[in-house]
Amino acid sequence: MNKVYVVGMGPGDAGMMCREADKILQECDTIIGYTVYVNLLRDVYPGKEFLTTPMTQEARRCEMAFEEASRGKKVVMVCSGDAGVYGMSGLMLEIGAAYPEIEVKVIPGITAALSGGAVLGAPLTHDFAVVSLSDRLTPWEKIEKRLELAAEADFSICIYNPASKGRPDYLQRACDILLRVLPPERICGTVENIGREGETARLYTLKELRDAEVNMFTTVFIGNSMTKEIGGRMVTPRGYRI
Amino acid sequence: MNKVYVVGMGPGDAGMMCREADKILQECDTIIGYTVYVNLLRDVYPGKEFLTTPMTQEARRCEMAFEEASRGKKVVMVCSGDAGVYGMSGLMLEIGAAYPEIEVKVIPGITAALSGGAVLGAPLTHDFAVVSLSDRLTPWEKIEKRLELAAEADFSICIYNPASKGRPDYLQRACDILLRVLPPERICGTVENIGREGETARLYTLKELRDAEVNMFTTVFIGNSMTKEIGGRMVTPRGYRI
Repeated sequence: MNKVYVVGMGPGDAGMMCREADKILQECDTIIGYTVYVNLLRDVYPGKEFLTTPMTQEARRCEMAFEEASRGKKVVMVCSGDAGVYGMSGLMLEIGAAYPEIEVKVIPGITAALSGGAVLGAPLTHDFAVVSLSDRLTPWEKIEKRLELAAEADFSICIYNPASKGRPDYLQRACDILLRVLPPERICGTVENIGREGETARLYTLKELRDAEVNMFTTVFIGNSMTKEIGGRMVTPRGYRI
Repeated sequence: MNKVYVVGMGPGDAGMMCREADKILQECDTIIGYTVYVNLLRDVYPGKEFLTTPMTQEARRCEMAFEEASRGKKVVMVCSGDAGVYGMSGLMLEIGAAYPEIEVKVIPGITAALSGGAVLGAPLTHDFAVVSLSDRLTPWEKIEKRLELAAEADFSICIYNPASKGRPDYLQRACDILLRVLPPERICGTVENIGREGETARLYTLKELRDAEVNMFTTVFIGNSMTKEIGGRMVTPRGYRI
């Protein structure tokens, strides 16, 4: 059966992808993805055919992948971070229903919750929730409800897409919701440009985070009730006695 | 500054760890971890010193890592999946407070939510929560509350440690809590032995999952209100129009 691959690149360049992903990229004919991520791979995998579509053309990008695979090519759709978490594997499987002769094989990657967590220390050692603040595909009311219930459940929370040019104040709005439930001194952290030049980690209280400057390359972490700062790192204990 | 590394191995053997993790393991002197995971690495990284402690000896394992690093060795503490998510990075940073001259460097890995999700298809494409059913270090009432609020928030939910010999009925108890909020026909999935021999994925309704057989090598996925089955795969749409 002909296969098309959806591969998570992990953060930054190709150093943080898993060895299986690297092997598939080395063996493939065609690499397809969002322009920014494909450009990171051009020098790492020379001699491949590179296809891109801009943001908002995600469905077209998937169709292109299946069309190329139908021609007998070994095609890889690349995603930043994981192939699943806010990635393309879901849409590939939805669109793949029209191409039953092609199997969709998903290769996971290290999503920003894990890679950013590693930079900060250990914010997600225990139960956690992941929430995107992008309301491009999700109603804001639903995002708000998820934040509030995640805080009530005492999850550590990892926030993706905390801001963009069109929504500069979304993290502030999210913090205002969290502050209804959580104390203002709750330990939080941000990581910018994970695995890339300019990687920066910062710790805040929740009150300070409300006014922090973030952008579309920032991942945000809200501690749970046990989270503490140890030597400048953000640490959520698992509960071992020491 | 002397460093000690906490490295996530990803699922199964060494094929799913990131290239950076592999590089650090190749260069190190000493690999330390839980016996089962260290044994997976003995043949992959010959010539290293291997140190292990059994489960329940986690704090001692961390102390051993710092003691070896204090002697000038390059030490790697390995974790299955990610270094953070239910991993050792938190405890390493807590115990590391007594060794301020040694920096703890965390290298993330692919946790079962991502690797198991890739096998099932795309269950975690949108906001999600991760909950462990192990009540060894967490009161059961807290686990119960988290499950109920995660369901109310319409998160996809990934469940770690759904059962063990001492708690054979915990998934059933968790499903009973979820069924207070979610419909019995909600799409769910399980993956057993991710990335290892015997890897098996199964789809269920939530009602069927309640009576499914699971063990300590199973990861469980509960869909959100949009999750559907497409060609035998579990797919949570991100919301793109197609």
